[in-house]
Amino acid sequence: MGATAAAGHGPVYEALAALPLVDHHCHGVVTAGLGRERFESLITEGAAWPGISPFDSPVGVAVRRHCAPLLDLPRHAPAEEYLARRAELGPHEVNRRFLTAAGTAVFCVDTGYAPDHVTTPRELAEAAGGAAYEVVRLESVAEEIAARGVEPGEYAETFRTAAQAAVRQPGVVAVKSVAAYRAGFGLAPERPSDAQVTEAAARWLAGGDRLADPVLVRHLLWTAVELGLPLQLHTGFGDSDIRMHRVDPARLTDWLHLTAGTVPVLLLHCWPYQRQAAYLAAVFEQVYLDVGLTLHYVGPARAPEILAEALEITPFRKLLYSSDAYGVAEFHHLGALAFRQGLAGLLQERVDADELGLPDALRIAAWAGAGNARRLYRLATTDPVPEDGRD
Amino acid sequence: MGATAAAGHGPVYEALAALPLVDHHCHGVVTAGLGRERFESLITEGAAWPGISPFDSPVGVAVRRHCAPLLDLPRHAPAEEYLARRAELGPHEVNRRFLTAAGTAVFCVDTGYAPDHVTTPRELAEAAGGAAYEVVRLESVAEEIAARGVEPGEYAETFRTAAQAAVRQPGVVAVKSVAAYRAGFGLAPERPSDAQVTEAAARWLAGGDRLADPVLVRHLLWTAVELGLPLQLHTGFGDSDIRMHRVDPARLTDWLHLTAGTVPVLLLHCWPYQRQAAYLAAVFEQVYLDVGLTLHYVGPARAPEILAEALEITPFRKLLYSSDAYGVAEFHHLGALAFRQGLAGLLQERVDADELGLPDALRIAAWAGAGNARRLYRLATTDPVPEDGRD
Amino acid sequence: MGATAAAGHGPVYEALAALPLVDHHCHGVVTAGLGRERFESLITEGAAWPGISPFDSPVGVAVRRHCAPLLDLPRHAPAEEYLARRAELGPHEVNRRFLTAAGTAVFCVDTGYAPDHVTTPRELAEAAGGAAYEVVRLESVAEEIAARGVEPGEYAETFRTAAQAAVRQPGVVAVKSVAAYRAGFGLAPERPSDAQVTEAAARWLAGGDRLADPVLVRHLLWTAVELGLPLQLHTGFGDSDIRMHRVDPARLTDWLHLTAGTVPVLLLHCWPYQRQAAYLAAVFEQVYLDVGLTLHYVGPARAPEILAEALEITPFRKLLYSSDAYGVAEFHHLGALAFRQGLAGLLQERVDADELGLPDALRIAAWAGAGNARRLYRLATTDPVPEDGRD
Repeated sequence: MGATAAAGHGPVYEALAALPLVDHHCHGVVTAGLGRERFESLITEGAAWPGISPFDSPVGVAVRRHCAPLLDLPRHAPAEEYLARRAELGPHEVNRRFLTAAGTAVFCVDTGYAPDHVTTPRELAEAAGGAAYEVVRLESVAEEIAARGVEPGEYAETFRTAAQAAVRQPGVVAVKSVAAYRAGFGLAPERPSDAQVTEAAARWLAGGDRLADPVLVRHLLWTAVELGLPLQLHTGFGDSDIRMHRVDPARLTDWLHLTAGTVPVLLLHCWPYQRQAAYLAAVFEQVYLDVGLTLHYVGPARAPEILAEALEITPFRKLLYSSDAYGVAEFHHLGALAFRQGLAGLLQERVDADELGLPDALRIAAWAGAGNARRLYRLATTDPVPEDGRD
Repeated sequence: MGATAAAGHGPVYEALAALPLVDHHCHGVVTAGLGRERFESLITEGAAWPGISPFDSPVGVAVRRHCAPLLDLPRHAPAEEYLARRAELGPHEVNRRFLTAAGTAVFCVDTGYAPDHVTTPRELAEAAGGAAYEVVRLESVAEEIAARGVEPGEYAETFRTAAQAAVRQPGVVAVKSVAAYRAGFGLAPERPSDAQVTEAAARWLAGGDRLADPVLVRHLLWTAVELGLPLQLHTGFGDSDIRMHRVDPARLTDWLHLTAGTVPVLLLHCWPYQRQAAYLAAVFEQVYLDVGLTLHYVGPARAPEILAEALEITPFRKLLYSSDAYGVAEFHHLGALAFRQGLAGLLQERVDADELGLPDALRIAAWAGAGNARRLYRLATTDPVPEDGRD
Repeated sequence: MGATAAAGHGPVYEALAALPLVDHHCHGVVTAGLGRERFESLITEGAAWPGISPFDSPVGVAVRRHCAPLLDLPRHAPAEEYLARRAELGPHEVNRRFLTAAGTAVFCVDTGYAPDHVTTPRELAEAAGGAAYEVVRLESVAEEIAARGVEPGEYAETFRTAAQAAVRQPGVVAVKSVAAYRAGFGLAPERPSDAQVTEAAARWLAGGDRLADPVLVRHLLWTAVELGLPLQLHTGFGDSDIRMHRVDPARLTDWLHLTAGTVPVLLLHCWPYQRQAAYLAAVFEQVYLDVGLTLHYVGPARAPEILAEALEITPFRKLLYSSDAYGVAEFHHLGALAFRQGLAGLLQERVDADELGLPDALRIAAWAGAGNARRLYRLATTDPVPEDGRD
């Protein structure tokens, strides 16, 4: 498990290379074969533009370096060879290899985003030899209600009931919101009134598709608080739908004050606001963070620095691991590898400089890679995870 | 003095380890014994939450690594042993050890924040074998006036008179504002009119406690300008009362243009906006900065990077040292140690790479650690500081 | 060429030291001799303040370290000796030495900013043994129209016609806007209506000098889009006229969506927003970036980190080189040196760690140093550049 992750040497590297990770936020992988164009579009938050291949970017370099060997190719194999070999092996074998190599014991899968046909949580976990739990994306719940049809005055209650039903399904451990994409974090912090929600719902139901009205986004976040499960929030890095200057998680401060004492809030991705996220994790009991998505996009060359910034003041029980991988199993592997190598590099260096004791370093590594997520989501502390926790 | 600070080797390390520092912004230490809960609450900007000890954070690791040996314990001693030994030695001896180890010759003490019973500036300096000066916190001056009772129409003049009297006390070298906490930096830059101040004062005096009205905060900053002393401003990092996205010091640019040619402005802490603060220091004659508070919270492992960012474009006469330590003398020591090691590491590396001449490196170190503050606050250039400079 | 640039060792250092650069955004150099005061004012974005010499700053240290040897002085020569030798050699010889040492094959010169008498693009290129192209600063075009006199209702058409004429001049390859300085990036993204432009023009023409009206700045940016040439935008770092919190290029996101599919947009300088700029370059086809100006101001000691942040997610075809040097030829040299050393250090380290293949590293270096600019501006792929491309 994770043998290729040990770029450096020392006991922290060894411990992290052997640690079964909890990937507390990820997605399924495409089960069909992928042509060059589709593969390239899945390894960028932009697109495959003429003359500018996503392979010619940090993540493309990382794929050719760290994924090619798992396809029996030399390190740094050219993109053409990589794609040809990928096609030759077929999606089932490719996915199996990367998911196994990730060394991930538990996947918490956001099932609310799937423009492609992707694996179910159970299928993902089975390919990896791990266990799966589910994360309910609340915008999807709301949009399904709108698609089925609802009176504006009934929207709030219908949404609440549907969300409650969704989180009661076996294996659901968290909810998620992409409020960052829909309205940014410049929202008024207070819970909107019933009348405001009805009025906003009337506007939305009359013509919209995506839930993006600021009042309804606020209502969604406040409904999340009532559900009692940890709430995952997209922050920072994403595709061009993001307005980066509006998704600094510090903008949530007033809301975090109002919702203190309710549910844990998990700030996902965070880059380039990992320091602001760390500040929130340091001063609000309920706030946790990860630098998922970011780590495989910047690759192992920069992952240590991103983790170092994220950890400048973050309490060690507040950092979690996620890949946020979607579509290609390369990212489930790369995310795990960049996390293991990056965190090991950071901790081992401090041990070697006698700034950190080895037992402390091993404890921090185990917490960030698995323990914090197991504690927060109340996962079983030993594998395998119960059957009803899958799919 | 500061023998434990020499983590690296070379003449810059030696010079900084031996340099008597000027800590241009700090607070007193608690004189009573501290139980675990109170100690933990004093080593975090958050709180001691169930299951998440502040010892399990970067600053906790730094305390166990760098403070334990001064209590005759091994490096990385467990928290329990640390606290037991601390109690055994008693607060007087503990404070004496850390304050002496800090190697600080001069303390400029903000006396306007003391939820605990803490040392006076004179007591602090005596325990350290150094000298003390005082920094007047203007919000405290204003709030004392309000507590004593004043007519709204008299507020402006009463505040000005009280502030003028406060800064005429022996040993006062600067004023300070926590406008960042109270209103953020999105304030209109202009001086408010007398009528506006009276109206705002009427609102505040009718019921408020903390001075947080934006008009009154602006008025406070403009009154500060008239006092003629350097003005210290909290920016960036702090507790959960901060709205981090509103305390980027760049938001002060319009106000800095309007007040150019008046008093020096010292940006305190700055993280995560150390680059924005550096920009202001590079383009406004009156702007100076430090990364106090930040350095001991991130610890010696990250202090070099924070200092490197703060110094990317900052003129070398514009960086000052402060600990911003409050409550526990560990922080007066850790702040000094992280500063000495961090700056020495940065400068020695550049000397070793022949990017910087050794005489220049030594000059920069002496300026940042003491000379810039002595020049700015017009402190005596040799110790000891005059008696009337203490308390 | 660039022999002094090889601070480290290895094939990437050698390749970058030998690479003829394309400096896609710079200015001319002063042709007269410079006294201490004027020289100091040209090596800072601030000013030469009493007691705070620009030589005592990162850029001053870099000048004394990397420029002194080209004047036959020892490394780290004192400022006085530096200036005396500079005067002794005379401006023509000084400029020749630095411009030759820069190893720049092509200069794209912004001719719209010249408070001093500076070289024409042709003169600059001839001193360097390179070729020159021109960048038209659109605010200057607009302000010339205003100075000559125009009716408000004619302003839009007159400006468009003048801009079209300006870009049809031989050797013009791009336009530039300093909207960041004039209005910040909090502009409404939509093209203003004709009536709005006429109304705003009436206000401006009645009394203003600098084009700073938000409606006219928006109009200028939309006019730029019609011109069909790449558009260079100042972002981030600059002098005290900048409001740093308003020039985060992420604030351009809505405008970038509306103008997608039109002209390339080149984000200049970017610091401290290099990560936000990288995000835009990763998700918008038309966005490119450089960290010009920043690199010589932070100097070779920090250039690798700035480049590393800028490249965390930037596609490798999206990074360009510029010096943004103005006034002193030291900066044309230092910018090139900091870029070569910084990028070489970053890439060679990754090659040495086997995170990047050497052929890939060499390709990335050649793209960033020259190829991306040649492709984007459709420059000849071999030197020399056609005669009509100069001045």
